[in-house]
Amino acid sequence: MASTSLSGIGVFAGSAVAPAVVVERVDADAVKEIEFADAGASRELATSALTAVAEHLTKRAEATSGHAQEVLQATAGLATDRGLVKAVGKKADAGAGPVEAVRAAVADYAAKLEKIGGYMAERVTDLMDIRDRAVAQLAGLPQPGVPDFEGEAVIVADDLAPADTATLDPARVLAVVTEKGGPTSHTAILCAQLGIPAVVRASGAGEITSGTVVGVDGEHGVVLVEPTADEQAGLIERARVRAEALAAAVGKGETSDGHRVQLLVNLGGAEEAEKVAAAHSAEDDPIEGIGLFRTEFLYLGRSDAPSVEEQTETYRRVLAAFAGKKVVFRTLDAGSDKPLKFTEKIEEDNPALGVRGIRMCQRNEQLLRDQLEAIAAGYKAVVESDLPGAAETLLWVMAPMVADADEADWFFGLAHEYGIEHAGVMIETPAAAIRSGVVLKNGSFGSLGTNDLTQYTMAADRLLGDLAALNSPWQPAVLDMISAAVSGTENPIGVCGEAGGDPLLALVLTGIGVKSLSMAAPKVPAVRFALSLHTHAQCVELAEVARSARTATAAREAVLAKVDPKLAALVS
Amino acid sequence: MASTSLSGIGVFAGSAVAPAVVVERVDADAVKEIEFADAGASRELATSALTAVAEHLTKRAEATSGHAQEVLQATAGLATDRGLVKAVGKKADAGAGPVEAVRAAVADYAAKLEKIGGYMAERVTDLMDIRDRAVAQLAGLPQPGVPDFEGEAVIVADDLAPADTATLDPARVLAVVTEKGGPTSHTAILCAQLGIPAVVRASGAGEITSGTVVGVDGEHGVVLVEPTADEQAGLIERARVRAEALAAAVGKGETSDGHRVQLLVNLGGAEEAEKVAAAHSAEDDPIEGIGLFRTEFLYLGRSDAPSVEEQTETYRRVLAAFAGKKVVFRTLDAGSDKPLKFTEKIEEDNPALGVRGIRMCQRNEQLLRDQLEAIAAGYKAVVESDLPGAAETLLWVMAPMVADADEADWFFGLAHEYGIEHAGVMIETPAAAIRSGVVLKNGSFGSLGTNDLTQYTMAADRLLGDLAALNSPWQPAVLDMISAAVSGTENPIGVCGEAGGDPLLALVLTGIGVKSLSMAAPKVPAVRFALSLHTHAQCVELAEVARSARTATAAREAVLAKVDPKLAALVS
Repeated sequence: MASTSLSGIGVFAGSAVAPAVVVERVDADAVKEIEFADAGASRELATSALTAVAEHLTKRAEATSGHAQEVLQATAGLATDRGLVKAVGKKADAGAGPVEAVRAAVADYAAKLEKIGGYMAERVTDLMDIRDRAVAQLAGLPQPGVPDFEGEAVIVADDLAPADTATLDPARVLAVVTEKGGPTSHTAILCAQLGIPAVVRASGAGEITSGTVVGVDGEHGVVLVEPTADEQAGLIERARVRAEALAAAVGKGETSDGHRVQLLVNLGGAEEAEKVAAAHSAEDDPIEGIGLFRTEFLYLGRSDAPSVEEQTETYRRVLAAFAGKKVVFRTLDAGSDKPLKFTEKIEEDNPALGVRGIRMCQRNEQLLRDQLEAIAAGYKAVVESDLPGAAETLLWVMAPMVADADEADWFFGLAHEYGIEHAGVMIETPAAAIRSGVVLKNGSFGSLGTNDLTQYTMAADRLLGDLAALNSPWQPAVLDMISAAVSGTENPIGVCGEAGGDPLLALVLTGIGVKSLSMAAPKVPAVRFALSLHTHAQCVELAEVARSARTATAAREAVLAKVDPKLAALVS
Repeated sequence: MASTSLSGIGVFAGSAVAPAVVVERVDADAVKEIEFADAGASRELATSALTAVAEHLTKRAEATSGHAQEVLQATAGLATDRGLVKAVGKKADAGAGPVEAVRAAVADYAAKLEKIGGYMAERVTDLMDIRDRAVAQLAGLPQPGVPDFEGEAVIVADDLAPADTATLDPARVLAVVTEKGGPTSHTAILCAQLGIPAVVRASGAGEITSGTVVGVDGEHGVVLVEPTADEQAGLIERARVRAEALAAAVGKGETSDGHRVQLLVNLGGAEEAEKVAAAHSAEDDPIEGIGLFRTEFLYLGRSDAPSVEEQTETYRRVLAAFAGKKVVFRTLDAGSDKPLKFTEKIEEDNPALGVRGIRMCQRNEQLLRDQLEAIAAGYKAVVESDLPGAAETLLWVMAPMVADADEADWFFGLAHEYGIEHAGVMIETPAAAIRSGVVLKNGSFGSLGTNDLTQYTMAADRLLGDLAALNSPWQPAVLDMISAAVSGTENPIGVCGEAGGDPLLALVLTGIGVKSLSMAAPKVPAVRFALSLHTHAQCVELAEVARSARTATAAREAVLAKVDPKLAALVS
């Protein structure tokens, strides 16, 4: 019998075959109302259910660490959000039973978040998870989520709640398939961090039942339902070839003729940093540092800014985990798309073009001052410690969303004031790319945020699936912009966007002249492998090939046709 | 006694002194409910008031023409919008009196439009005007708006309703000052079209009373309340010098050494085109054609797409008015920020980065096919007519929001299919600017939309006042992008954004190599004057000076310091 093939968006490469384990949902709308005495009792039952959900998630958070812990804590916090609890109470007072009170209040709240859009809209998934959990709790049903399973599995879901994704065990979860979600959803980001092959927006995945054998090709975004024996063998062979190839590439990042390209990781939490540093301490699999440490997790979802002390301790831990190496901190990148509870709210028609990143910090200077003070203090503590190599630890700090020299100089001035020597900027606006020389005149490095740079260069929202074809870092216009940024300055330019973790693009970027590539840790081996197969001159040629193409598709195809067959086999 | 100085944003240059005439508003919230028998009577009264408002506006529309007429018709249409009338009826049925029914329904409707943002949010001003008119009608108060006045005046308002602005008489209205509004509001655009000096967002303007003498400096965005005799004399002298200087510059656009730069106009309606062509037919004040004909007015606010016949007639009239000259049509630039009623609605977090312009047409191909067919038919009718010079009429057609070669080639293919020889694109995404050679390979011209190009290059929403400093075409990064576009192709590149109408920037753009500048008709004389005072070599030097500056402010200052003193006097 022929298999059914579903196509979606591959968000982490690699292939696998295993029985499906379907994430159980509670159909909250179908749950019948439970008995309750009066409005007071309804309110009490509904509120208790939310508290129970929060406690359950907090307990799970305690059993885990790093990013998973943060996600679970954030979801637990949302379950007892004052606005939500109040809304539930109101619905109960107006006569709703506890199940309906939860459902109606969550629906109102979700509509609000969706209107705000951006980061807030993405929290709707969390909110629906909370609703389902609370309704299950009230109706005495089992809690929704990933059911227990034996052996290995492909996890299949409508969309994974962040709380589910965060606790997946990469040793037993061979792949993840979701019907919804997008390339920048929690599911996508976490699967890449865990190194689990994943396909999102796989239309038809909702019809897969538990136990069905599923084959997943995360490179091409293909899901095979009940693959034939040949197809299974093909996928397994691909996985074997991939594992073997990646295992063969060891050491630091360099081309076959010894041109060095630093391979760094993107991180966003202290525990995560400790975990990644511990996992990659072997000499044949070194991580050369952190190319992008996101600091938003310290600020989002809380009602006060974190104190200098709290921040210092976090930054100290991160630097201690990477003592002797380079760590690049990005200062707070918040704004109306990732709003803080303690700064002024601004209504914006286009939050992506709004007061975010350094613009927000210019309007809240003390926030940035505190952060720089804490980073400098954390660094001092590590340099003066007796950790091996501590004195050689390199601190780099950069500001997001810089568009002109005024903003850059303001930031460099503040950083230097706090004794931070290496201050730089994210290059993610076309303006900063085309004027890198002027913008970086008083700074020491630049880091290309290719996701935003692509979005602005193409004037196409990166979260809009409908514009995915335009929104590719393979667009020759984006490569031209990157080239302008690199050739416009003597300062080193790295890449910390998704593009840096694509083995083919990594070669092109190396050819253009970037000095470092930063990515989710599990993406490092494939990039290291790609570099090891090509000379620097070949990379330069590949860059020319890509930039001479008329379109993004043509650019990738032309590069693919010219790379070493071993790499081509891995990515095609 | 010293005068009070208010600062705002100058949206059309020129200075004037005259007594203020304050636009009367009805304080709709303070109007008391009128008597009504029952819900049915309330509904009847409220609905009749809306109908009366629509009739009043329609009558005024009939007495005018061109853009004014279109604005008045659109506002009249909104007054009898089915959604609004239905909402008013519902409020009445729920027990509201007629005054409250109008107020409450409008408030709900306005909130909805504001949530949608962009173009729809801008219609809130119209809606509030309708509310005030309907409430005044119900309460037997005089209709709000510009009161009758003797002689000359400076019109002062909180914000001008489009219906008010559209009917201003430039012979007697020497200037306009508003407390609210923005540089891209209706008020701003219409004042520039009428050639009336204007300052918007003049904080404190709301306190000016009718009869107070007011001095306005539209170049610098300064409003003097009760200016001293010296200040009055200064402003009047400035106005005289300006008028004299502009009158001295005659003929076609060229530098003092004969380097030609076409001076064209931006238009958006057939009657407007006829009016402008008639007003500028003299040999010493020629208009060399239309550099940007916006076609949105044919599509917005109606429930069906315009027929090929209706469109053909409009395009024919426009081309007939400019027979023998160049006319550049821009195909439909709609999308979620300027939504059409007859295409699929898309919810977008960032409409400016969404499915707009050519992206929307790719998803609704027949819309574009009909438009191209109609443009080609209108052109054929004019070329074959016996109008003087008809055979030399030049038809150019361009698509908005093009970002890559695939989109451009798709458009060129369609245009050629309909026999349109000169097809080009708007260059308003950084991608199109940096890849102009590739994008225009199969096309024949490009037109820089500097407003959007600035917004995307700087990643700063052009409608966000808070980011106005970033959002300047003087940003050296924007000038670099323009330079890349011009030097990347052999095809002629023009400018049709606001930058083209700034006399200082016009010199810089000429130095960079643009072949034409298109602007609101009243801006032509100052640009013609600026060109006539400088050689082409000087323009090239000014372009270098501007592009070498570190910031937008420094760029303008450096250019200002180098231009002919007669121009410097006009703009500083």
